Amino acid sequence: MRILGIDPGYAILGYGIIDVKGNHFTVCGYGAVTTDSSMEMPDRLKHLYQQIMEIIQEYEPDVASIEELFFNTNTKTAILVGQARGVAILACANSGLEINEYTPLQIKQGLVGYGRAEKKQIQSMVKAILNLTEVPKPDDTADALAAAICHGHCAGHQKRLAKYK
Amino acid sequence: MRILGIDPGYAILGYGIIDVKGNHFTVCGYGAVTTDSSMEMPDRLKHLYQQIMEIIQEYEPDVASIEELFFNTNTKTAILVGQARGVAILACANSGLEINEYTPLQIKQGLVGYGRAEKKQIQSMVKAILNLTEVPKPDDTADALAAAICHGHCAGHQKRLAKYK
Repeated sequence: MRILGIDPGYAILGYGIIDVKGNHFTVCGYGAVTTDSSMEMPDRLKHLYQQIMEIIQEYEPDVASIEELFFNTNTKTAILVGQARGVAILACANSGLEINEYTPLQIKQGLVGYGRAEKKQIQSMVKAILNLTEVPKPDDTADALAAAICHGHCAGHQKRLAKYK
Repeated sequence: MRILGIDPGYAILGYGIIDVKGNHFTVCGYGAVTTDSSMEMPDRLKHLYQQIMEIIQEYEPDVASIEELFFNTNTKTAILVGQARGVAILACANSGLEINEYTPLQIKQGLVGYGRAEKKQIQSMVKAILNLTEVPKPDDTADALAAAICHGHCAGHQKRLAKYK
């Protein structure tokens, strides 16, 4: 199974593609789509959509795993990041991908087994699980790979559970 | 100039298309795109996008006028409505429309000349300006037409000001 992980944002959107076979994870690609603050928001959203569509065409993932947003700061930021998230979900839906959403808590628990794990712990686990030589930068890319790994774990569990149903 | 007004939402998205010639406004069409709560969010966003694309193809507007969201309630709702708003902006951007955004305050001031105007006052003005026999329902539709009228007024002002530059 090939999973596209996405950490949504309008200035930086992290993505990572991994292959999962049983308990074995292999990284296929990762990076970040960025938009400049000098661009108008419609152009930023259009750019994000086009880039995600290209990534999906290049890597042909089977499913998407997208981090759920959690804000307790201000609603203005929440709306802006929500807009970018909507566009990312649409790109996956228009490409026929099954879409899975995980909260930051679920992703942390899935990777480190501990919901309050620190960013650095998550990044170390991503590096270790995917056998990378260094932590992927920017942080959004590591977070996207973490979302992909989280779904790999969960999908594995679901499959194993299904056997006993 | 033909203006597409949009009041974004994921359960109900209001739209209204008007023609503006000088100070004269004519309504071309209006309505609401709705999605059922039983649908998964990716499918709801996909449906909204497809429907807006169809509306743009049918009416061929020159510009879009979209209400800016304002929430002081919870960020969870803000993210969900932000997602729908992102998809609406994307549909307009992908169709090559110029996109204008107005706050609820600007729309109220543009229509009634008073930023704290009540919903009913706005609806009466929409009905009067567009020479309708009744207030368009649901409320989201009247709000979308109000956004379109607001841009019609503003664009007119900008043109008149441009003469003196």
